[in-house]
Parts: sequence; structure tokens; C-alpha cells
Amino acid sequence: VARRKAKDTVQEFELIRALQRRFPARAPGLIQSIGDDAAVIAASTTEWWHVTTDLLAEGVHFDLRTASPKSIGYRAAMANLSDIAAMGAAPRFLLISLAIPSSLKQPQILELYAGLMEACREHGVVLIGGDTSASASGLFINITLMGTTPVRRALFRKGARIGDGVYVTGTLGDSLAGLQILRGRPSTRRRRPDLRAVDHRFLIQRHLHPTARIAEGRWLNRHGWATAAMDISDGLSGDIRHICVESRVGAELDAALLPVSAACRAYAECRGFDPTELALAGGEDYELLFTVSHERQAAVERQARAHGYRIARIGVIRPRGFGLQLKSSDGVLHPLPMTSYEHFR
Amino acid sequence: VARRKAKDTVQEFELIRALQRRFPARAPGLIQSIGDDAAVIAASTTEWWHVTTDLLAEGVHFDLRTASPKSIGYRAAMANLSDIAAMGAAPRFLLISLAIPSSLKQPQILELYAGLMEACREHGVVLIGGDTSASASGLFINITLMGTTPVRRALFRKGARIGDGVYVTGTLGDSLAGLQILRGRPSTRRRRPDLRAVDHRFLIQRHLHPTARIAEGRWLNRHGWATAAMDISDGLSGDIRHICVESRVGAELDAALLPVSAACRAYAECRGFDPTELALAGGEDYELLFTVSHERQAAVERQARAHGYRIARIGVIRPRGFGLQLKSSDGVLHPLPMTSYEHFR
Repeated sequence: VARRKAKDTVQEFELIRALQRRFPARAPGLIQSIGDDAAVIAASTTEWWHVTTDLLAEGVHFDLRTASPKSIGYRAAMANLSDIAAMGAAPRFLLISLAIPSSLKQPQILELYAGLMEACREHGVVLIGGDTSASASGLFINITLMGTTPVRRALFRKGARIGDGVYVTGTLGDSLAGLQILRGRPSTRRRRPDLRAVDHRFLIQRHLHPTARIAEGRWLNRHGWATAAMDISDGLSGDIRHICVESRVGAELDAALLPVSAACRAYAECRGFDPTELALAGGEDYELLFTVSHERQAAVERQARAHGYRIARIGVIRPRGFGLQLKSSDGVLHPLPMTSYEHFR
Repeated sequence: VARRKAKDTVQEFELIRALQRRFPARAPGLIQSIGDDAAVIAASTTEWWHVTTDLLAEGVHFDLRTASPKSIGYRAAMANLSDIAAMGAAPRFLLISLAIPSSLKQPQILELYAGLMEACREHGVVLIGGDTSASASGLFINITLMGTTPVRRALFRKGARIGDGVYVTGTLGDSLAGLQILRGRPSTRRRRPDLRAVDHRFLIQRHLHPTARIAEGRWLNRHGWATAAMDISDGLSGDIRHICVESRVGAELDAALLPVSAACRAYAECRGFDPTELALAGGEDYELLFTVSHERQAAVERQARAHGYRIARIGVIRPRGFGLQLKSSDGVLHPLPMTSYEHFR
């Protein structure tokens, strides 16, 4: 889930660790429990099932004053589709729970569903269940999404090895820039004279209508290209920590290699930001972050071009003791700042 | 899910119908979509997977002022276990999402989990995933529970036939009586001189520590005894409508046959209630409601006694045009009142 406060992300991480210590999950057929983008179950001799769940809270993850119910529904589904993409799985079935405040009327609920279903249709996902009830305060949306891979074939956060290249799909920071435009004071909300209309539209669209990298995830998984993978929902600088923790490694990122769209670069210039900051902190881009062993990098890059998948190598996996460092444009290494999406909104 | 307002239950029902019309769910391997206690997926050649999800809202489904986090966690898990019981399935894996207000501290969250895990341990369920985030207002708990049955072997709401006997497990109304005691004004909260301490404790315990009828559900399913089944979470008088709608039948219930515990009867007497009203409206008993064909009733009743399962025949399935009627103690048929749990709290 994207867009919770940095503090909460840290708290969640601690809480999950506390729970894992307290309730270690072992069961026949359980491949992956808490700690990755989805839980993995060996449900048959041919398929692994991947299950992910996300709870989105009004005023924390979305704002009914600035986003339409349809866009909120679409983005809620996409956040979960992205988790399934990060496992290299094909999404299959969705369950949705709603706690609905009395202020929200049935047409708005149906609009929310329409947004959800639009995201599902794009990926052949079927709504199979759910729950609706009253809420004393605010709209809450829980999505559970199930997907499949062939057995013994999935992308995990653990598995990155020293020397592996660090890659991302697409471009980073666009969604955050789009959100800032939508949330900005009237002066920023109107297009600034120096930001082209096409860039303005592109950034807003990237925020309201993100795309989960299902095809890219399945491609990486099918060929066994990636040693580790996850999706970027909270921002690169926070999310890469998960791969490093689970894989017990460090990482060195190169600011000059971070893929930033021309629109995002133009936006950052207008606002006087370093676009690197947007790329590091920007959540909800729903790009994939993955690692590839040194000897496979040339083949992966060639194949990606052949498929029309945009990927960029942004760094390299280092030993654990190296920690997380960012090479800035002057070639000097600095500790990777723990900025987060929320930080910037 | 139990304990939403009667109005909300009706709205949910309408909403679900609207969604089913709008998004008919058909997919390879999808056995049951929206409209039963769980969705059913043919995940392998040997097993069906059953998936249910529930979203519980503070101030609607639970109250942190009158219930401990541990009891709230336990009961949240039990509500979902009961849905899996109603499918005749063995519960396997649980995912939990929490939206946590800043007023709730980590020890309370861990207590909530401890309650959840206690319920899970009783039934061999393993926590495999989840999500935690901030809430701007109130605690929200979403549980997704997955269970299994052998293929082509499950209990559905549809399937009841005219002439089938209508049965329930256990006794009805205890949980509502316990809740009323817990919520009562100080005068009712203290044990009334005419209610024995043992009855008082029993009713509170039935509310705080309900039991999902997993064993009974699996037994009914294994032998193919039940033609239809569901769990009673919102109250018999509301829930039986679901079986009648899905099975396209009516039903006649007999007030004199409703199983009411001695404690509940004593409580009703103290409060000047008709215990029938408690039995009809009482939700969260998590008993199973099921139907059995005429020729199998004697065998089912004999087998239940042999296993130590308490079941009671409370009526008979009638044609659709009969609607829902209750035979009162004077032998006269009345339309079944649309009371609900909330009505009584």
C-alpha cells in the first residue's frame, strides 16, 4: 500500500517483525508467509496461488474531495494488481470489502466499483466476493487479490546477491508530481506557463490511472531473469530497503541512472526540485524494482527492448555492511535518504 | 458479518444484486462467486478453495469501550471461521488488514492479534499475510480466510427443496443476551438477583467467546447430509431469507422448536422478553442453519446424537409463494418478523 506516513511504514515493519517472531507461520503447502508482496500457497501440483490484501483508509490513502470514486476504485485495484505483478503472477480473482459512511450514496459506490472493475477487466480479473457494511466515520476499502504462477516459479524479495544489477521498469516520480499538481494550491493547480499542457496531462494521468506491470512481472518470472523483485508503492528509497533486508545485502544506487520522464523533469524544474528527489520519494508509480545477476544483464536488457518493456539499471547490490548508498551526480556516495512519498505530498 | 443495521443488511443485499447484474462473474475454475458465505475456486483436481472476507468497523461491529482488543480479535476471526464452517470447509489460511487510529498503541494491537491467533489455533489456521496502515478515525479490521474441501463437495445457500427440514446447531439468542448484559445500564450489568451467576457468566461467555461450528459443518458436508446451509451471523429471521432467496423457496418456522438455552430463557424472563424474540433476532451466535431432505432427517438426527452435535429441527421448507411464516405458540401462522440483531441491542 502506498502513501502512508514514513513513520507508519516503519511502525508497520516493526509490527510485522514482532508478529513474525510471535506467530511463525509454517504449514503444509505454505511457500511464503508475511514479508513479501503476497503470500504464496502450493494449492495444486501445477499452480502456486498468490494472495495479497490491502486496506485503504479515507483521509490516509485517498481523499474524496480531490479524487472521484471511480479513480479511487481504479487505483485501489491497481495497488493490489501491482503486488501480484511483483510476484510474477497472473492475477485471477478479487474480493472487495467496503465500510461505507452514510454520506456516501449508492451511485458513488457503484462508481467506485466501476473503477475497480475497469482495472480488473484490463487484466482479466474476476470479482468473486466481498462484504459491505456501515462505517461510523470515513470510507474504508479492503481488497484481496489472488493470482497464480506455475509451481516453483515466483519472484520474491529475498534472493538478491552481491554484484546483481538493480533495475526498475518505467519512470519514477510521475505519480507524485501528478498528485502534487492535483493537490497544489490554485496557483500550482493551474498549469504553470513553463509546463507544457501535454506534460501536465501526462503527470496527472500517471497519478489517476497508473498501470500495474503485470506483463513485465510475468516475463521476468517466466524466464527466471530476476533474482529478487518487488513493486514500488511507497517510494524507491523506502522500498529498496525491503529487498535488502530480505536478501541480507546492501545496495548502491546511482542518481544519474534513475529513469525520470521528460514531463517529470520539466515539472521539477518549474517547481525548483531536484527530479532525483521525486524519483526516490515518489510512491504509487507501481513500477517493478528487481535485481538481475551480472551475467544475465545483457540478455535481459536485449530481451526487454525486443518486447518493448522499458527497464533501467539504476545500481548494484553490495554487501550488507555497505548499507544503502546513493551516488550523486558529483560521483560522491551518500547514505540513501529515508525520504518517502508522504514526506513530499 | 454480524451486527450491522437491518437497513444496512437490506442495502447490502440490494447492492450485491446490483453488482451481480452489472458484473456477472464467470471464469474457468470459479465454482461460486458473490452470494454465498464464501467464494469457491476449483484450484486443483483434488481440492476446492473457499475464500471469505469481512470488514469490521469500530462503532459498528465492535466497541473498544466495552470489549477488550483480545476479545475483538477473537470474535473477528470467529465470524470468518463461521463463514468457512457454513461451506463445510476446513479453515487453512488467514490474512488480516488493520487501519489503526493513533489512539491505539502497539500493545493493544498485539493483544488484538493474540485474540485472533487464539481463534486460529483452535482450528489449525495459519496467519499468512496482511496489511497495516494508519486510520484517520477508528479501528478497522479486515479478515480474509481461506479453507478447503474435497472437490465437488461443499454446502451452499442454494439447494433447499420443498419438504426439507430446517435445522440449526446449538442454541440461539445467547450472544445477544450476553451483549445486552455487557451493554446494559449499570443496573442490568450487575447480575439481577433473579438471574443465577452461572447463567450470567454463560451468556457473557457466549458473546465474548463464540465458537464456529467447523466440526459440524465438515460433518454435514462429508456425508452430504445438508441440501443447503449458512451460518447465523445477523439473526435467524434475517439469515433464513438468504437460503430462501438462493433456493427459491419459502419456509415455515415453529417458535416452539427454536432451541433456547436455559440461561437465555432465564434472562428473557428477568427482562420480560419473549425468548423467541431473542432467538429470532440474535446474531453472532455463529450457529449453522441448514436443511435436510425428509428421508434423511432420522439418520442425521441419530448421527448427530452419536457425535455429540446438538441440532434442532425448527421448521420446514415451503413453496416460494408461502413466503416466510412463523407458527407461534398458539399454533397460528404469522409472517416472520424482519427483526434483526441491531434492532435489539
